[in-house]
Amino acid sequence: MLIKITGHPKSTCTQRVIAILNELGLEFEIEQPEWATQKSPEYLRDKHPFGKIPVLHEDGYQIFESRAIVRYLAAKHKPSLVPADLQKLGVLEQFLSIEYSYFDPPFSAWVFEKIIKPIFGHGQTDPVKLEELTKKVDSVLDVYEKLLVGKDYLTGEYSIADIAHLPCLSYVINNGYDLGDRPNVKRWWTNISEKPAWKKSIASVQK
Amino acid sequence: MLIKITGHPKSTCTQRVIAILNELGLEFEIEQPEWATQKSPEYLRDKHPFGKIPVLHEDGYQIFESRAIVRYLAAKHKPSLVPADLQKLGVLEQFLSIEYSYFDPPFSAWVFEKIIKPIFGHGQTDPVKLEELTKKVDSVLDVYEKLLVGKDYLTGEYSIADIAHLPCLSYVINNGYDLGDRPNVKRWWTNISEKPAWKKSIASVQK
Repeated sequence: MLIKITGHPKSTCTQRVIAILNELGLEFEIEQPEWATQKSPEYLRDKHPFGKIPVLHEDGYQIFESRAIVRYLAAKHKPSLVPADLQKLGVLEQFLSIEYSYFDPPFSAWVFEKIIKPIFGHGQTDPVKLEELTKKVDSVLDVYEKLLVGKDYLTGEYSIADIAHLPCLSYVINNGYDLGDRPNVKRWWTNISEKPAWKKSIASVQK
Repeated sequence: MLIKITGHPKSTCTQRVIAILNELGLEFEIEQPEWATQKSPEYLRDKHPFGKIPVLHEDGYQIFESRAIVRYLAAKHKPSLVPADLQKLGVLEQFLSIEYSYFDPPFSAWVFEKIIKPIFGHGQTDPVKLEELTKKVDSVLDVYEKLLVGKDYLTGEYSIADIAHLPCLSYVINNGYDLGDRPNVKRWWTNISEKPAWKKSIASVQK
């Protein structure tokens, strides 16, 4: 049973799903909708009611939202990526929420300004805006530097929280952002980016 | 063992935690930090590294982020609020992500503009801005009307996804927003708002 993903390989949300699929060793194919198609009545009815990507299709079953897909696939194929211990689960949930609440907004905006905007014809990168976003990324990573003291991964053990961060973190680091004097973030980044599954993912989507 | 919540009773995120605590029949007390305190080095170090509320304190264990706290407490005290079936779990995750991605931004902004802004001395409600936000709330609920066809709850069964929506939905409906001609949303709203746990919650925080 082949998994199909409606998405764009350059999109960080699609990449989040690609990351978990490769982590789980699952075969899949990507179906890329045109932007206009994503807002069509058919797309809104059959794929994603808010006109977004990615969407997972698996043998008649279908869900959307990258973080939901990551959680669903991990629960199905590798439950060890989510701790069974309740207190550890709470810490994992905390990091998954941090990712969405504080990490993703400035990182996604940085990726859009520097990479997506020129690629998809939305205009040239605005250096002043990019500089502002870089400062916001800096301040988020200053907090992560403290959260990662003495840890190899966000919760201590490799989990879906680490995977959720990979696309944006990889984009900024591979496109000129300097991690600076943050040894804990650097150690974490090395640990998560050198996993074979992410190397396989990035080779296909961020080259 | 008494649960302590660092938070503000008027905050929708704090109310999300109050909702699950009452749903689970757990005793708790609220500790309200001053706004300035929330940004102090001590608060950032000991409570929430991004200076936010709420924070859960439970016998030496501590986590922050309302949605993480809801998930943790449900897993611990009432796992039936999260389906065991994997495909149903995927649908739950989808709705939890929809709540955070598309529902919360316009609803939170509406609540801030209409209720929080005047209460906490941030100025008077701007009627033009409120009208714009009302249109955004409208369009989100138009999608929910379709997602709720034939269903009593978001995933079919009462779950933490319904609970996550309660504070914002309750605030807008109880402060002049008209659900209009949306019978599915109205049925859902009646089903979730008439639960004794939410009635108890709202009596203490949205009066």
